Amino acid sequence: MTSAEDVALWWGTSVSRMEPGVIELRGRPVQELIGTTSLPAMIWLLTRGSLPTPRQAALLEAALVASVDHGPQAPSIAAARMAITCGVGLNTAIATGAGMLGDVHGGAGEQAVRLLGEIRDAERGGADLTDATAQVLAAWREKSRYIPGFGHRFHPLDPRRGPLLSLVADAVRDEVVSGDYLRAALAVEEALNRGRSRPVPMNIDGATAVIYAELGFAPPLARGLFVLSRSVGILAHAWEESQQGRRNKGPMPPSILPAYLGQPGDI
Amino acid sequence: MTSAEDVALWWGTSVSRMEPGVIELRGRPVQELIGTTSLPAMIWLLTRGSLPTPRQAALLEAALVASVDHGPQAPSIAAARMAITCGVGLNTAIATGAGMLGDVHGGAGEQAVRLLGEIRDAERGGADLTDATAQVLAAWREKSRYIPGFGHRFHPLDPRRGPLLSLVADAVRDEVVSGDYLRAALAVEEALNRGRSRPVPMNIDGATAVIYAELGFAPPLARGLFVLSRSVGILAHAWEESQQGRRNKGPMPPSILPAYLGQPGDI
Amino acid sequence: MTSAEDVALWWGTSVSRMEPGVIELRGRPVQELIGTTSLPAMIWLLTRGSLPTPRQAALLEAALVASVDHGPQAPSIAAARMAITCGVGLNTAIATGAGMLGDVHGGAGEQAVRLLGEIRDAERGGADLTDATAQVLAAWREKSRYIPGFGHRFHPLDPRRGPLLSLVADAVRDEVVSGDYLRAALAVEEALNRGRSRPVPMNIDGATAVIYAELGFAPPLARGLFVLSRSVGILAHAWEESQQGRRNKGPMPPSILPAYLGQPGDI
Amino acid sequence: MTSAEDVALWWGTSVSRMEPGVIELRGRPVQELIGTTSLPAMIWLLTRGSLPTPRQAALLEAALVASVDHGPQAPSIAAARMAITCGVGLNTAIATGAGMLGDVHGGAGEQAVRLLGEIRDAERGGADLTDATAQVLAAWREKSRYIPGFGHRFHPLDPRRGPLLSLVADAVRDEVVSGDYLRAALAVEEALNRGRSRPVPMNIDGATAVIYAELGFAPPLARGLFVLSRSVGILAHAWEESQQGRRNKGPMPPSILPAYLGQPGDI
Repeated sequence: MTSAEDVALWWGTSVSRMEPGVIELRGRPVQELIGTTSLPAMIWLLTRGSLPTPRQAALLEAALVASVDHGPQAPSIAAARMAITCGVGLNTAIATGAGMLGDVHGGAGEQAVRLLGEIRDAERGGADLTDATAQVLAAWREKSRYIPGFGHRFHPLDPRRGPLLSLVADAVRDEVVSGDYLRAALAVEEALNRGRSRPVPMNIDGATAVIYAELGFAPPLARGLFVLSRSVGILAHAWEESQQGRRNKGPMPPSILPAYLGQPGDI
Repeated sequence: MTSAEDVALWWGTSVSRMEPGVIELRGRPVQELIGTTSLPAMIWLLTRGSLPTPRQAALLEAALVASVDHGPQAPSIAAARMAITCGVGLNTAIATGAGMLGDVHGGAGEQAVRLLGEIRDAERGGADLTDATAQVLAAWREKSRYIPGFGHRFHPLDPRRGPLLSLVADAVRDEVVSGDYLRAALAVEEALNRGRSRPVPMNIDGATAVIYAELGFAPPLARGLFVLSRSVGILAHAWEESQQGRRNKGPMPPSILPAYLGQPGDI
Repeated sequence: MTSAEDVALWWGTSVSRMEPGVIELRGRPVQELIGTTSLPAMIWLLTRGSLPTPRQAALLEAALVASVDHGPQAPSIAAARMAITCGVGLNTAIATGAGMLGDVHGGAGEQAVRLLGEIRDAERGGADLTDATAQVLAAWREKSRYIPGFGHRFHPLDPRRGPLLSLVADAVRDEVVSGDYLRAALAVEEALNRGRSRPVPMNIDGATAVIYAELGFAPPLARGLFVLSRSVGILAHAWEESQQGRRNKGPMPPSILPAYLGQPGDI
Repeated sequence: MTSAEDVALWWGTSVSRMEPGVIELRGRPVQELIGTTSLPAMIWLLTRGSLPTPRQAALLEAALVASVDHGPQAPSIAAARMAITCGVGLNTAIATGAGMLGDVHGGAGEQAVRLLGEIRDAERGGADLTDATAQVLAAWREKSRYIPGFGHRFHPLDPRRGPLLSLVADAVRDEVVSGDYLRAALAVEEALNRGRSRPVPMNIDGATAVIYAELGFAPPLARGLFVLSRSVGILAHAWEESQQGRRNKGPMPPSILPAYLGQPGDI
């Protein structure tokens, strides 16, 4: 027969332990963490189970800081701004935006971590880096015309790429991380640009994927971390919009009506 | 006639400026922020428009760190864990949990900032602190039986209260913040506990509200900041759950069926 | 001590009863409902506990049919269309749109049912309809400049008003409903238009509120029913958008950038 | 240069046309649809572009009616009930539940429509039904251990299967639908049960997939239609929960605490 203990186990967790007067996060009393632990270190602790070194935390922080916003042309930001004019709380505005960070909008980082991991695995399997990269890129191209983490429809050169990779290079030099994924990402960039006049540089998803992979985060967490980061921009935009007083803000001024495209016949 | 410029203005923002190759956040090039700015400082920058001092950022960070998780008994955490077993991404799990931080679950911080602000306003209007507190509490009690930020159904003494208030006291001593809201919160605590054997101490919503109010955040942002913070725990729990392999996890083991309560007649 | 039975009771419900091989909805075996019960009747059964008469179901159906869509200028529709281009499922697109039907976008129907109920209560308390209406409108105007269910920023005359009210009038004539709320709504319309050259006619929220109130739905269910109805349009738009192949659709063509408004100083 | 017309086209749609005083849905004035069109017919019209015959609409309605609820053991229902206790509106409760109908929880119908379509295609390619079924099942089993639409962890025989298939059989007899997908689904059932003592019968996702496929709905719409249907149960449960007055309802009575599983070491 099912007992209360079975129910407690159904909801069993290693993330936290609660008892009256007690809050432990990953086995550490919360009162020891407050004031001593940075927010990135706490993110690491909860998702990974142990505290990062200061250099690891700093690298994670740089990635989280870099992705906070890309303005209202990003559908997640626009939707959050529209949501807050509909009479909901900031929690719903954030949920609206965060929920939209799907496979296409927010999933590139997750996929890029996988891509870099496949190259490193191929390298460990004995291929040299150029061959490993060519082989993995060929396999990805069979599945999709997009190589996640590279190219941008808007920025010819993403201004976030340089500073992020530079921080990774410093961390490699100081043996904070191995540099395997940085090398892989640069090899992808080189392979993509070979023989092209208009380059396809690493974008923010690629550069942060390098960091998340170097730090040992599993691919799905790359998306999770991006959601945490972008939620900052979502909040800022929703809050700004809420101060402007619009009600039921549509995607364009009310004077423009959506074009009616006629009926295509039964579909 | 409506022009493209009108459309651009419809989506006008002070949060960020994007042009090909350019990303500015609150007027600052993103490449200058990466590696130099902490995540809490970035949260402050985007929501407030300027960078905080290091001490302001540290106080904000402590509040954000303190609220990350309260385990699967919190509906937002439980729902996010269930969501991830339903075949969605971590983005949807976070959206599920964040969306549930409504007026009751996540709104206490926002309301507590309002409460403390009303006491301070009454004090500025000439009342002494004890009278201002009594007067504001009486008005709140007419609207609701809950005083936001005080009391906990679970923790007789919230272990996060002490370290957070201690950090605020340090900041008051060093003139980082005024201390007006800390005094107001302690006055509420004293008023609530007068003549009671079982105290009603400040809870996490109250203690973080003191910090957000001292730092000058508007009440709705207190909720927004809580959502950012709790999203960390939501992510950690959803991720842990996803590693356990359940599919369509219900709220209790499948061997327990919901009780059927019979029909109450037309309602 | 807490037992499995307590847990079962924690999730106790009158809506349905499940046992292996058994599904009962509001006490009725599902196999008796399939093929014999219309979708509006099922909505009524689940939310109210008993089956409606055919005339009640038809009136509910008319209200549900009338509200399904208002095009991409509605933020909920636009957001759902953007969501589906971000690499999520139709479930997330619907959730995105439905979540945005908040107090301003979707709450007018709920508020209009309350408004009509207050007029009817004042009438039952002895006031004549004109006085009851004036008195209730005055009270609402103290709280807000909007009278829910009346006026439209877009339609000078809402084409849904006429057919819906006509169906209610038929139902009053045939004693399907009392007509109290129809009279109240017409009295509001008359009061609002007195002495105005540009009328403020009842809108879709008002006309459906008349139906929901006449049928005895509680005010919050008016919003719930609107969400069910509008979800149809949200689905249709998200599906259409998904067939057009855009990725990460923003709120305007990529050639238009959001205007940068400059920094307002610390806020 | 981008003009207002380009912006209008960016939001172009065939679903509806709005002008002041005009609302057309799929080319039909809304006032002609109100009172004459059933809710299932409206769902068909908006998603497909034309009105169904009464028999087509009746078959769609049966599928929509059959899936409305499966009680609080379903994660979507439980989460919606928890959401409404957190101080959000019914719109957010519905969004919470609908968003969780992902690939595992709500996607089986979509996958089942694909499965049946593949069998029919193989049959059209010349294979006999038994071979086509065996071949398609073998291919699915390579990708997953689950055959979508068949088997249930709870119901040995799903009580909704019989009445739904019986309605399809009637429709085949009367030449409303072809019966190709019904035959395919029965062939799957037979193949799965061959040589087994405990049968793996078609479940609700399979039975409704037969209907959606027979009626010509694209696979993703099968999930969309399921979301519309299940939203009815989500609403009913959230509404019932809201009447019980709980605040911040967790997944089990507060007297049971989640088990603490200890730390697994760095992960």
